[in-house]
Amino acid sequence: MKSPLIACALLAIATGASAAPPVDLAKFPDTAASDPKANALMVGTPPPPDKLVRWADGSHFRFPNTRWSFSHMREVMPTADVWRGSGKPSHFARAEQKLDTVAYTDMDGIARTWGEALAKTWTDGVVVVHRGRIVYEKYFGALEPHFPHIAMSVTKSFVGLLATMLEHEGKLDPSAPVTRYVPELAATAYGDATVRQVMDMTTGVQYSENYADPKAEIFGYMTAGAFLPAPPGAELPGSFFDFLKTLKKEGEHDQAFAYKTVNTEVLSWIVQRVSGQALPQLLAQRLWQKLGAEEDAYLLVDRTGTASGGGGLNATLRDMARVGEMMRLKGRFNGQQIVPAAVVADIAAGADQAKFAKAGYTTLPNWTYHNQWWISDQGYYMARGIYGQAIYVDPKSELVIARFGSHPIAANSVQDPIILPAYRAIAKHLNRGR
Amino acid sequence: MKSPLIACALLAIATGASAAPPVDLAKFPDTAASDPKANALMVGTPPPPDKLVRWADGSHFRFPNTRWSFSHMREVMPTADVWRGSGKPSHFARAEQKLDTVAYTDMDGIARTWGEALAKTWTDGVVVVHRGRIVYEKYFGALEPHFPHIAMSVTKSFVGLLATMLEHEGKLDPSAPVTRYVPELAATAYGDATVRQVMDMTTGVQYSENYADPKAEIFGYMTAGAFLPAPPGAELPGSFFDFLKTLKKEGEHDQAFAYKTVNTEVLSWIVQRVSGQALPQLLAQRLWQKLGAEEDAYLLVDRTGTASGGGGLNATLRDMARVGEMMRLKGRFNGQQIVPAAVVADIAAGADQAKFAKAGYTTLPNWTYHNQWWISDQGYYMARGIYGQAIYVDPKSELVIARFGSHPIAANSVQDPIILPAYRAIAKHLNRGR
Repeated sequence: MKSPLIACALLAIATGASAAPPVDLAKFPDTAASDPKANALMVGTPPPPDKLVRWADGSHFRFPNTRWSFSHMREVMPTADVWRGSGKPSHFARAEQKLDTVAYTDMDGIARTWGEALAKTWTDGVVVVHRGRIVYEKYFGALEPHFPHIAMSVTKSFVGLLATMLEHEGKLDPSAPVTRYVPELAATAYGDATVRQVMDMTTGVQYSENYADPKAEIFGYMTAGAFLPAPPGAELPGSFFDFLKTLKKEGEHDQAFAYKTVNTEVLSWIVQRVSGQALPQLLAQRLWQKLGAEEDAYLLVDRTGTASGGGGLNATLRDMARVGEMMRLKGRFNGQQIVPAAVVADIAAGADQAKFAKAGYTTLPNWTYHNQWWISDQGYYMARGIYGQAIYVDPKSELVIARFGSHPIAANSVQDPIILPAYRAIAKHLNRGR
Repeated sequence: MKSPLIACALLAIATGASAAPPVDLAKFPDTAASDPKANALMVGTPPPPDKLVRWADGSHFRFPNTRWSFSHMREVMPTADVWRGSGKPSHFARAEQKLDTVAYTDMDGIARTWGEALAKTWTDGVVVVHRGRIVYEKYFGALEPHFPHIAMSVTKSFVGLLATMLEHEGKLDPSAPVTRYVPELAATAYGDATVRQVMDMTTGVQYSENYADPKAEIFGYMTAGAFLPAPPGAELPGSFFDFLKTLKKEGEHDQAFAYKTVNTEVLSWIVQRVSGQALPQLLAQRLWQKLGAEEDAYLLVDRTGTASGGGGLNATLRDMARVGEMMRLKGRFNGQQIVPAAVVADIAAGADQAKFAKAGYTTLPNWTYHNQWWISDQGYYMARGIYGQAIYVDPKSELVIARFGSHPIAANSVQDPIILPAYRAIAKHLNRGR
């Protein structure tokens, strides 16, 4: 079971706090050397054994296989469709600009360019939308414009958006106890938590990410949800929901931000219970069909057909950019108010900086985490997922950037020093002279 | 391992010869009683245990769960997308007619109506296209117009169509030995077989469907391809291709038609090897994108990402009807010649009746099996899949019928006596007075 452990290791780094361990990125093949097309991953009838990427041995979660698998998740796992409907895709105007040479200085004081930033972060694709027009769109590795790519924890922001919509419709009360909606969690860490604490990830829940311990909860989460195969003979919960019912309390709620994916799975449970709809249908009816998405999206599902709200969304880059534009435009896109402006304002307002600061994210000074979105105090905000998934929404700069990646290290803190200043540089460049 | 055995039993009946064992259909819940919506299968957050349909316990292949799962296969298994492209769907004119009361007499001499025939065969949906216009379209159970439904062995006809196209392009020689294209099969039953014998299923291959024997090849096929979970501790091939490499010869080639799904998996291997493209890409580029399909289709894939050419296609009914129309119109549809007319004529010409007769299909007198299609001597032909999947192409009557079902018994011979005369009755009714 070597590979799942490696995968867990990467995830462990990712979902822990900001202080990433020192990582020598030079030991990993770079963007060109890890290119899945050049390396003929999964090419051949059949592909040779050393080019196979499979769920059964966990190799789908192992770099550089991830450079292929993150654009092909449905081929290794069961998934549920997020239907775009039968209407025409919404139109995206284009005004392409050469941005590769845009120069900036990264957080470590190194002079870089936008093009270099993309390569140095193992980017699979990026779309830059300025004033509603696509000014830059590139694909690398295995990704193509019509391929859904796994969005990892960007998924959480979609669940948070749905929860906030339900809140503003009066159907979900953030101050209510979790157990009002999911009584099954009464005997767990969530027995005395509020929905608000779940939405902002300030619960005290024992959720170990010590991958050296085969009983660590992160291992249970990933195998319960079938992200990874279970070790032989393991007795583990067979679904996300069954896993959540095993969680114990650790510390107190409401003291500090603590990023734990299980909070989102709880929120996803609440959202589905309150709405009476499964997550794929919610995303389809409330977002995908109204946005005029170009392609269906899909969600990874566990062995009981439950979608992963914590990290299971797969979508095309352009459709992610549509979501970003909708947020930038206060919920209005494709000729209709898709999300109430008050919902977007609520999310963008952020949460308590003091609680966020306790988590020690050095690359995100003065940010907060609110309703499953990452909110800067500079007027922009993000949906963020490990390995480099992002929707960057910057209303002041009239800018949206959607990006997918397959970085060798899960932790975004490893690539933040390069990529976050790059987003800012693009914002500045596109609005120069204004 | 009760459920996989039941599934295998059903498949065994299906893939064996025509002589179905006596079946008391009255013991199965009828269309209404087995309705997955009425029974709330897979409804709830989470669905209660007795409403769960899962791959892990084989319950996705157990009636009446199949009434849900056959419209939701991607939610229980990994799949590969068949992309429809970004163009507009082709237009289907409509001229709806009331056909439910069309009366006829079935093969057993029982007076029936079209509407009754659909219900008595556990139909999930049907589209009737007359002179290019949809005259009848209905959905039952879990199926909706935009849901891909598993096509079972209708898939084979798509592989056969691709093979015939490659033949007419001079890329595939039916008289060549299989080993010219797949030398890996030299030491198997296919070592001295020709491509033609594989295309028309006249190989002598030991492929037991004795489900009481856990070592029977059908069990190996289904578990190797991950249609069903393997029994604990079983040492089985991990892919379709690895399984094919284990097949031994039994009897002589070219003596008689013998319907064995493994022949199609061999043909699928050949088609992919010759074209240098995987089956999902072939179907997308050569058919789906040219047809102007309404929705993406998808293929079930095994643990190595290899699509099942034997039974893995899932598509919407209307897109199946588009394929049928394209065949009826000698390969021309959506304003372009998608398949050469000579390819369609080749398929429709059928094969050797004497070889087919040896298999004893009493419901298919004077039919043949050619290039993976079922050809009547009355001028119409079909793609057929177990549990009631069909594309019925009747150029003389300017008629195409696409149908999906989830009959409790796999064998089409059980429902042929009701449904085949019903197709003929619809043909006669629509062309009355001509």
